[in-house]
Amino acid sequence: MDVKEVVFMSKGEGESSFARNSVFTQKLTSITKPILQNAVSSLFSADFFPCDLLNIADLGCAAGPNAFSIISTVIESVENKSRELNFRMPELQFYLNDLTGNDFNTLFKGLSAGISQSGNKGAMSSWFVMGAPGSFYGRLFPRNCLHLVHSSYSAHWLSQVPAGLTSKEGLPLNKGKIYISKTSPPEVRKAYLAQFQEDFNLFLSCRSEEMVPNGRAVLILHGRKFADPSSKEGCYTWEIIAEAISHLVSQGLVDEEKLDSFNVPYYMPSLEEVQALVEREGSFAIEKLEILEIAVGDDKEKDIWAKGEKLAKNIRCFTESMIAHHFGEEILDQLFDKLTHIVVDDLAKESRKTVSIIIVLRYMV
Amino acid sequence: MDVKEVVFMSKGEGESSFARNSVFTQKLTSITKPILQNAVSSLFSADFFPCDLLNIADLGCAAGPNAFSIISTVIESVENKSRELNFRMPELQFYLNDLTGNDFNTLFKGLSAGISQSGNKGAMSSWFVMGAPGSFYGRLFPRNCLHLVHSSYSAHWLSQVPAGLTSKEGLPLNKGKIYISKTSPPEVRKAYLAQFQEDFNLFLSCRSEEMVPNGRAVLILHGRKFADPSSKEGCYTWEIIAEAISHLVSQGLVDEEKLDSFNVPYYMPSLEEVQALVEREGSFAIEKLEILEIAVGDDKEKDIWAKGEKLAKNIRCFTESMIAHHFGEEILDQLFDKLTHIVVDDLAKESRKTVSIIIVLRYMV
Repeated sequence: MDVKEVVFMSKGEGESSFARNSVFTQKLTSITKPILQNAVSSLFSADFFPCDLLNIADLGCAAGPNAFSIISTVIESVENKSRELNFRMPELQFYLNDLTGNDFNTLFKGLSAGISQSGNKGAMSSWFVMGAPGSFYGRLFPRNCLHLVHSSYSAHWLSQVPAGLTSKEGLPLNKGKIYISKTSPPEVRKAYLAQFQEDFNLFLSCRSEEMVPNGRAVLILHGRKFADPSSKEGCYTWEIIAEAISHLVSQGLVDEEKLDSFNVPYYMPSLEEVQALVEREGSFAIEKLEILEIAVGDDKEKDIWAKGEKLAKNIRCFTESMIAHHFGEEILDQLFDKLTHIVVDDLAKESRKTVSIIIVLRYMV
Repeated sequence: MDVKEVVFMSKGEGESSFARNSVFTQKLTSITKPILQNAVSSLFSADFFPCDLLNIADLGCAAGPNAFSIISTVIESVENKSRELNFRMPELQFYLNDLTGNDFNTLFKGLSAGISQSGNKGAMSSWFVMGAPGSFYGRLFPRNCLHLVHSSYSAHWLSQVPAGLTSKEGLPLNKGKIYISKTSPPEVRKAYLAQFQEDFNLFLSCRSEEMVPNGRAVLILHGRKFADPSSKEGCYTWEIIAEAISHLVSQGLVDEEKLDSFNVPYYMPSLEEVQALVEREGSFAIEKLEILEIAVGDDKEKDIWAKGEKLAKNIRCFTESMIAHHFGEEILDQLFDKLTHIVVDDLAKESRKTVSIIIVLRYMV
């Protein structure tokens, strides 16, 4: 699987598009807004201030609307802080990054409507938006140019499906599963962790080349609270998708070998794993590192079936591109129909929370 | 007509897409390559050299493949000149600009395949590509950042259909035509020239804010050789489209009022008009100003019918979005079928040349 070609949020603005099903990431963006605001404020005490231009990158921006919230928050924060300190408002250049397969057309079309500028007419901020296509596991920007990096729910996507998920004889090691699971042999956990370590280290070292000294990075990753990566919270989404695919296997709709050879390029790290990698890479000081738990599903939705349907749609919009690539588009509707039933049954049993790891970094010289 | 929404090169990579019908602009890009190479070379004697980063903008990039040729030429020229002068190779940041309605998805997908880097493996240049959506009749980039601006076959598109093409009573002044024509009253010529003057002045003044002193701009516009804007060479494309639409009117397929109220947001200036505007705006020194004539149509194609069909397709790919918007998509096939016949008849009578105006500017402090 070539992640660059195959992994993207569902395109367009239709029923199953990311643009209309990103409720969870919108909630997350709203909750983490003060953290982004603080990171912007902290830039004003860096040695590069006052300056004429701030360069801000959102890595893994998808096709909106979250990218627009990020832009609005940064504009507002820079305006407020400039006014407070009586600094001339710098110009702002926003780089919106995602893989080449991302729907940049929809992103760009949403820009003018999606960005609410602060009501203060006196501020008159001047800002520019660029699309930056490519993988963040490589250099994306010129040296020494970024003042602020933001990346939410992106850096848990690996650059590739980990190597080492087959035996020496070429047999699949992670039978019946698509991610680390209780039944996965230790090699599977090791392979996933090794891939995340390599990728996250690359992510950090590329950013260290692109960022200015004392620039800040706000990273939000899907993660886990417990050390054990096969704990239920640490692999829930992939566990239930594997269950739904297994159901199609049992019905003869999908070959068992097809399931056995499918593994997702994704890793939910623990806080300690992230911390260790930042410290080992060595370019960044940790300004903040914390776990955030958010209840799964739409709080306002009281009907469990409706809530489950929404959740399943939400899962679909960030997984269907790679599932369709491996299994074929024709299984999608049946698969996500089964997934909806599983989600609804689970919701009836217990409420669940999604664990996110929030880390704010300062690039040291 | 909102030009930002309605004017774009035909999308995708299919039969009638811009990506597959840009033969003329490809020929133009190839012929003007030495001019771009010279402009790059001249940057090396500017006061900002040697530097770590060169920012290059291509304004009106469409969806490829011309943008890729521009990028390849600049990379190669910078590598060669850096080697010659024994300068460290700067990093290059390419901003590819077009209106928000442009097909950036196709542009970005073509990037990796479309850009041929120089064969010299020692050079190892490091370059980044950004999409910059928006109108170049406004600010697109931060202040004082661009070293090189390139814009080919874009700045003859106006920001809007000129005002003043109706009488005080609201009646259309340019009956039966869609651009300046022999039969157009003087008000039509005045309105078109006034709109071009306003737009081109804005184009220059926005670029003067964005460019660094001694940065260069290479602009290539569709233009005319003769003073009279209604001379055949100065309005040919629009004259034959009007003729084809008139044919549909005569067949009852299009309302006459619909034709009378349609005028294109386009202006083919003379060299003198361009020169006067640059001098009046005052930010730029003219390094080069010349007329280039290129024979119309594929030289290799000897069959007149095949040649005419290609030409009509070429015209379609940059005009169909606005024609469909005004007249409806359903007339497109018949219209361009008629256009093909007109083009073929004309090709049989005489060979034609397209006039381009090439101007190289240096931004003065």
